[in-house]
Amino acid sequence: MINIAVLGYGTVGSGVVEVINTNHKSINKRAGEEIRIKYVLDLRDFPGDPVQEILVHDYEIIINDPEVDIIVEVMGGIEPAHTFVKRALMAGKSVCTSNKALVAKYGPELMEIAREKDINFLFEASCGGGIPIIRALNSSLTADEIDEITGILNGTTNYMLYKMSTEGCGFETALKEAQEKGYAEADPTADVEGYDACRKIAILSSLAYGKFLNYEDIYTEGITKLTPEDMEYAKELGMTIKLLATSRKIGEDSFYAMVAPFLIGQDSPLYSVNDVFNGIFVHGNVLGDAMFYGSGAGKLPTASAVVADVVDEARHLHRNLMTNWNSRPLKLMELDEVKGRFFVRVKGTTVEDVEKVFGKVKVVNLKNLPGEFAFITESMKQGEYKEKAKMLNGSIKAMIRVKD
Amino acid sequence: MINIAVLGYGTVGSGVVEVINTNHKSINKRAGEEIRIKYVLDLRDFPGDPVQEILVHDYEIIINDPEVDIIVEVMGGIEPAHTFVKRALMAGKSVCTSNKALVAKYGPELMEIAREKDINFLFEASCGGGIPIIRALNSSLTADEIDEITGILNGTTNYMLYKMSTEGCGFETALKEAQEKGYAEADPTADVEGYDACRKIAILSSLAYGKFLNYEDIYTEGITKLTPEDMEYAKELGMTIKLLATSRKIGEDSFYAMVAPFLIGQDSPLYSVNDVFNGIFVHGNVLGDAMFYGSGAGKLPTASAVVADVVDEARHLHRNLMTNWNSRPLKLMELDEVKGRFFVRVKGTTVEDVEKVFGKVKVVNLKNLPGEFAFITESMKQGEYKEKAKMLNGSIKAMIRVKD
Repeated sequence: MINIAVLGYGTVGSGVVEVINTNHKSINKRAGEEIRIKYVLDLRDFPGDPVQEILVHDYEIIINDPEVDIIVEVMGGIEPAHTFVKRALMAGKSVCTSNKALVAKYGPELMEIAREKDINFLFEASCGGGIPIIRALNSSLTADEIDEITGILNGTTNYMLYKMSTEGCGFETALKEAQEKGYAEADPTADVEGYDACRKIAILSSLAYGKFLNYEDIYTEGITKLTPEDMEYAKELGMTIKLLATSRKIGEDSFYAMVAPFLIGQDSPLYSVNDVFNGIFVHGNVLGDAMFYGSGAGKLPTASAVVADVVDEARHLHRNLMTNWNSRPLKLMELDEVKGRFFVRVKGTTVEDVEKVFGKVKVVNLKNLPGEFAFITESMKQGEYKEKAKMLNGSIKAMIRVKD
Repeated sequence: MINIAVLGYGTVGSGVVEVINTNHKSINKRAGEEIRIKYVLDLRDFPGDPVQEILVHDYEIIINDPEVDIIVEVMGGIEPAHTFVKRALMAGKSVCTSNKALVAKYGPELMEIAREKDINFLFEASCGGGIPIIRALNSSLTADEIDEITGILNGTTNYMLYKMSTEGCGFETALKEAQEKGYAEADPTADVEGYDACRKIAILSSLAYGKFLNYEDIYTEGITKLTPEDMEYAKELGMTIKLLATSRKIGEDSFYAMVAPFLIGQDSPLYSVNDVFNGIFVHGNVLGDAMFYGSGAGKLPTASAVVADVVDEARHLHRNLMTNWNSRPLKLMELDEVKGRFFVRVKGTTVEDVEKVFGKVKVVNLKNLPGEFAFITESMKQGEYKEKAKMLNGSIKAMIRVKD
């Protein structure tokens, strides 16, 4: 029997309890032993809920119980999660977590303690909800040098962009719908400003490239400035707009990463990742293109990933599952040096004037937007784009990057 | 140092050697030890190729060398692969293989020997080429009860259907193009008749449901009867036609499986799996929908999966990685009992007559095909469909199942 404790009985925590209860037969078979939830930690009480019988309010009971083998941290936030997790690992208890903020900030420290203690710190649910991308990077794509990860990593904004694209509504309406459906929180900043996706791409990149990418180093732009007109232009081009979190290895020690809205074409497998779904595209030097698709959030998909970590830790109770991520910092190149194509909307200028500055461009017009047009540049460094943009003397209404 | 021997220096075998040479640094890091190819077995010689130095023609050299820890079987076919693999496992050497025919036929026997000897028999590359679906089923989706797997598992036929759909060409033209591009073999039977996909869905289903699904029990229908007109109807419906290999768990001990062309709609993530790519859709009772996408074949993607197995075996040299698959047979329900919708093309009859038999149907006409029309039935058992079809007195030109 393997005893676990669940820290936090919120959405994910109650999902973990539900998944373990629902699928206990197959989970125990796969773990090789019976998984038993010995404690649930929460400050609140849940009268009437069977969880009340195993509920404790004091972490000391859990950390001091030698029978507890695995601790599931699903409280979220940095504190007290960090203190609790660190103490658990120091005490020789494996930990799994869905907490992307914790992993993005303290991942290397916590993995290092787990390595020293020959136990495990796993975090499958921290990126892409139920999509098994972390385990794929750790133990499946091991023959490859990964040179690109590009993901739709935030379900809320993907839902909003999908609504804006299919229904022609604006940002505010899409946000309201997302909030009504429970996809967006009352304060949607972390989602719509790209901060959530930023932490996730930091974690995935650190695993893929084997160094620690600090999320604070990543250029991050949200979706708040996108308009229904941008979506119309995208459609006219046979493309769509997605919030992508992307990182690439350009050379032996040369990387870039960013979170921003991108125009993407139908030849990308990410093009059809709609609604609240997430998709994570990976390119390996021998594998080629691969994509992982699934529910990026939600109580049960996230809990499914957490419990898969529990099963893995139960199978490897005193045996560290190596990861490729160490604490050496991964340095990013200057964004101005990154090459790409740019979609630009302009007003009060002419194609002739634009081409004087940008050279040959691909022009697109919308019938219902007279007096303005848009164009897509050739590939150029971002710094070069900025210089040229200045020369158009304020006629630029919007710029969106194009995914190549 | 971990010594491996590669059996077969064909497409995949030479790919394995190339991948290990190209990415040796990161592979060794992930394996935790240096991986060294000590032998390559082939009946042929390869003068001028560096492999010649480690080439042997006699399997006895390999099996009798106690330094060989892992054997990579990439010869294909049943014999001598089966004998070689079985002897290797009996001798305590872990084996990985890309050989779907071997796994579909002898999987349970070989896994059982590996379990007894506390070594491993892995076969990531046998299904879906470079897509890490086997490891996902074995070690990621462990919190779930999988209740559906539906895959585009054959790149050759997917390429052909994509050509037929986008270029309007017929089966023969598409086949010729596939052969010219090296996607289809001179004898394309295994691909176009669905036999290849059938073995793959048998393996995936056995892993997902934990019992042995004999591929010979699976109803299998290829793509040879599909026409450009079928594709046109699909387009008119906003759908497309794919060769799907699918299995479902309907009740506690009730399963069905089949390989056949299906009409699928744009709401399915498999809809956009085009060209030679493969896609594998999985539904879990807590995970919900997930899809894995990538190169289903090709030298390097397949070799990438084989080498990932080598790394996993190197990490777990004398520790069996459990699988959920055992040798109890998985019994399928009668196909006539399986429910679904049917797309039917008819000539020489009327909507009125059709609806007398089938009840309300969805009708679709093509301008360029006067005198005929098509319809989609409500959901019904296949046996019921067959009975009703008889009543239309030979006016049915074609029937294709609809994916729900």
